[in-house]
Amino acid sequence: MAKDFVKRSENYSEWYNQLVVRADLAENSAVRGCMVIKPYGYAIWEKMHDALDKMFKDTGHSNAYFPLFIPKSFLSREADHVKGFAKECAVVTHYRLKTNEEGTGVVVDPEAKLEEELIVRPKSETIIWSTYKNWIKSYRDLPILCNQWANVVRWEMRTRMFLRTAEFLWQEGHTAHATREEAEAEARKMLDVYADFAENIMAVPVIKGVKSPNERFAGALDTYCIEAMMQDGKALQAGTSHFLGQNFAKAFDVKFLNKQNQLDYVWATSWGVSTRLMGALIMTHSDDNGLVLPPKLAPIQCVIVPIYKSDDQLPAISAKVQPIVDALKAKGITVKYDDRTEYKPGWKFNEYEFKGVPVRLAIGPRDLENGTCEVCRRDTLEKLTMSLEGIADHVEQLMDEIQRGLFQRAVDYRAANTRKVDSWDDFLTEIEKGGFLLCHWDGTTETEEKIKELTKATIRCIPNDAPAEEGKCILTGKPSHRRVIFARSY
Amino acid sequence: MAKDFVKRSENYSEWYNQLVVRADLAENSAVRGCMVIKPYGYAIWEKMHDALDKMFKDTGHSNAYFPLFIPKSFLSREADHVKGFAKECAVVTHYRLKTNEEGTGVVVDPEAKLEEELIVRPKSETIIWSTYKNWIKSYRDLPILCNQWANVVRWEMRTRMFLRTAEFLWQEGHTAHATREEAEAEARKMLDVYADFAENIMAVPVIKGVKSPNERFAGALDTYCIEAMMQDGKALQAGTSHFLGQNFAKAFDVKFLNKQNQLDYVWATSWGVSTRLMGALIMTHSDDNGLVLPPKLAPIQCVIVPIYKSDDQLPAISAKVQPIVDALKAKGITVKYDDRTEYKPGWKFNEYEFKGVPVRLAIGPRDLENGTCEVCRRDTLEKLTMSLEGIADHVEQLMDEIQRGLFQRAVDYRAANTRKVDSWDDFLTEIEKGGFLLCHWDGTTETEEKIKELTKATIRCIPNDAPAEEGKCILTGKPSHRRVIFARSY
Repeated sequence: MAKDFVKRSENYSEWYNQLVVRADLAENSAVRGCMVIKPYGYAIWEKMHDALDKMFKDTGHSNAYFPLFIPKSFLSREADHVKGFAKECAVVTHYRLKTNEEGTGVVVDPEAKLEEELIVRPKSETIIWSTYKNWIKSYRDLPILCNQWANVVRWEMRTRMFLRTAEFLWQEGHTAHATREEAEAEARKMLDVYADFAENIMAVPVIKGVKSPNERFAGALDTYCIEAMMQDGKALQAGTSHFLGQNFAKAFDVKFLNKQNQLDYVWATSWGVSTRLMGALIMTHSDDNGLVLPPKLAPIQCVIVPIYKSDDQLPAISAKVQPIVDALKAKGITVKYDDRTEYKPGWKFNEYEFKGVPVRLAIGPRDLENGTCEVCRRDTLEKLTMSLEGIADHVEQLMDEIQRGLFQRAVDYRAANTRKVDSWDDFLTEIEKGGFLLCHWDGTTETEEKIKELTKATIRCIPNDAPAEEGKCILTGKPSHRRVIFARSY
Repeated sequence: MAKDFVKRSENYSEWYNQLVVRADLAENSAVRGCMVIKPYGYAIWEKMHDALDKMFKDTGHSNAYFPLFIPKSFLSREADHVKGFAKECAVVTHYRLKTNEEGTGVVVDPEAKLEEELIVRPKSETIIWSTYKNWIKSYRDLPILCNQWANVVRWEMRTRMFLRTAEFLWQEGHTAHATREEAEAEARKMLDVYADFAENIMAVPVIKGVKSPNERFAGALDTYCIEAMMQDGKALQAGTSHFLGQNFAKAFDVKFLNKQNQLDYVWATSWGVSTRLMGALIMTHSDDNGLVLPPKLAPIQCVIVPIYKSDDQLPAISAKVQPIVDALKAKGITVKYDDRTEYKPGWKFNEYEFKGVPVRLAIGPRDLENGTCEVCRRDTLEKLTMSLEGIADHVEQLMDEIQRGLFQRAVDYRAANTRKVDSWDDFLTEIEKGGFLLCHWDGTTETEEKIKELTKATIRCIPNDAPAEEGKCILTGKPSHRRVIFARSY
């Protein structure tokens, strides 16, 4: 077990911060609020990227790239958007440095002031819709199904690695459609893609739903979301998909000639997930021994560590290991044989355990004699001595078991921490325990904000599968027709 | 042939600009100097990305991500670097907007001024070496072999899509080593990787060499480069790899304990290629009919167009085409069957020809009777009627032929436009004709700059394979020991 590593039960927040740094995922940089994503953390993000990118392409989307900068005036074009979006942005005002008078450094050249300031994109609706205007003339040009992988900047005051950083990486889909129905279907379809990814790749169960009007994206008619529960019982919004109506088309005057030869405004969606998913991944599966990774996102899926007392024992072990490495690779399993002599087996065990490698094999001289090896799975920390015969098949099967096991564990945890609450007194007690509270709500923003003010809990979503049920709002007692999810959140 | 499309011989520069836009590769955006990379252009860049990324990983490198912003003071740390690098940078001075007094738009909040300005990275040596300081304690931590895929910004005054834009996409490798020899070998190895990529994936022949001291990257001890020749005879620097010595380690105080237990500064390299490669690709292969793509980078490698007079003929053609599509996909060939009814075959032919799809198959009712199809290859525009029997094998073979044919054509063009020049008078005449001039040079920056001033030609590189040869400098007549390449360049 890692030394001085704080336990989740002691200080969950500190546990997270330590884990991110000590598992080599990311670290704070010299620039306030901006993180460095280290190679091991980035390798996980690349796997997320690749899986999502394939899903986007399989559903007909193409990638494109739009400018990093947005003219300040663009942000004023869509009235709801400008009112609602956070104004903490990085603002570029100058375009040149010059050597200082002493010749020892650089200063901003006051002569090189931009006529109009540029904003480093906090998101790209405005620059993209100003571009789409030139791409769309007729229904033949529709739909446009574009996605962009990019960095974005929001000048958050309180930052935490992956969860909330000034700069982060994400993808943002921006689609344009001829009809309202098609755009709404697209927004819902992409929510399904996100849920599929979260559950089947990340092994993170999510609830699909729609945001209350108060929690909608500024400029959207509907915001769909997936919500996950972290191990401290708090909710984490893992992805959103927005039905934007014709708001951005109107703001940027994007009209098309429909099949009836009439001019109409184009319908829009946008949808995104970000490096925040790394936070969701960590906080769903990891434990007091460090990172736990689902096999589908593990940069190393299986590590093999040789155990030996003297260096002359190593060649015999390596000879035995090579066919196992080959057999695992043939099955598409990413395997690492760590035969470095400058580190002891114990150090390696700790290292790979802390980094969440799903399966570890250890092979020593006695194993050579017996034709066995020690198999340790990271999720349960179970150790078994197994025959080397058929070991690759066994590891392959373990990958599947671990992937499904992690998902089931998270489903069970969420089920154990989701409760129906029907009175305000119970709400006040239960919200302190964490988890999702299924409650009746009278449907007003006023009530929602009052509850937030009193308890810090927000409506995470109105679940898609919430059954019709008559009840009374937990705060006001007014009538309600189905339960929504309240929780504290990241 | 595309209407109103200017010929290369009429106006090469305008031909390029029109091609980029009309082939749907990129367009200028609302932000000065920043381009929008459209889905078709981005799909080519993604293929470049994927091929390069695999080569980087196969040579032991990992990806990571470092902040977009660089504190202004960092740029003053490495003296050669600050002196030499271009100071046209985007400068962030504020971090908040606010709604204006009329409530109609946003203005920069003067209260939200940064204490230290942040520079949008023009490249990342400084922020990365400030990070490496924390990663490196001992020789055990070395080498660090990191690469980053990122956007960078240089406030160029005169921009051209892909070739020189304010924002562009690139990769930058940044490696740290225990010895000078290892770092130099890394810098040369990555130049080999770039040359391999350019020649075998892009089908662009390149000359590997080293820059003259005057053309070195600011802060480097040596800059290696690959140089390609465009169809107008101008040179284009397609990639660079820098041996940085201990300059950045010294600037950011990055020391390590070597095997002899002594503290020493770390040795560094950096290397990069960018979306500029898109420009090289276009200008090497394309012709007066539009884009020409090597099969290895073509988003669509083979398109199949049905030819029919009445809609009821289409199903029979489609039924015949389906097994061909399946057979091509099984071979890993990206194929598109364009059975859209709203466009005529002639329109489709023009479209795919202009977009550089390497092979086009056309199948009509007569072909159905005869068991044939028309095969057209984009590089030579040759048309052949072929039996449908074995057509997938034939297309597969064509991919290989086209890939090799494009490379050979470019090699021949370069050979025909490379000349030895031994007198200043000849130089003045020959440089006007374009191409590479192999000349003796006295090795001084003074001469190099004088030649540039008089002719706009620069030393592209001292080729790695330049044989030892005694001669006299074309300008000064002073002794020289081998020829270098002079050319005008992008």
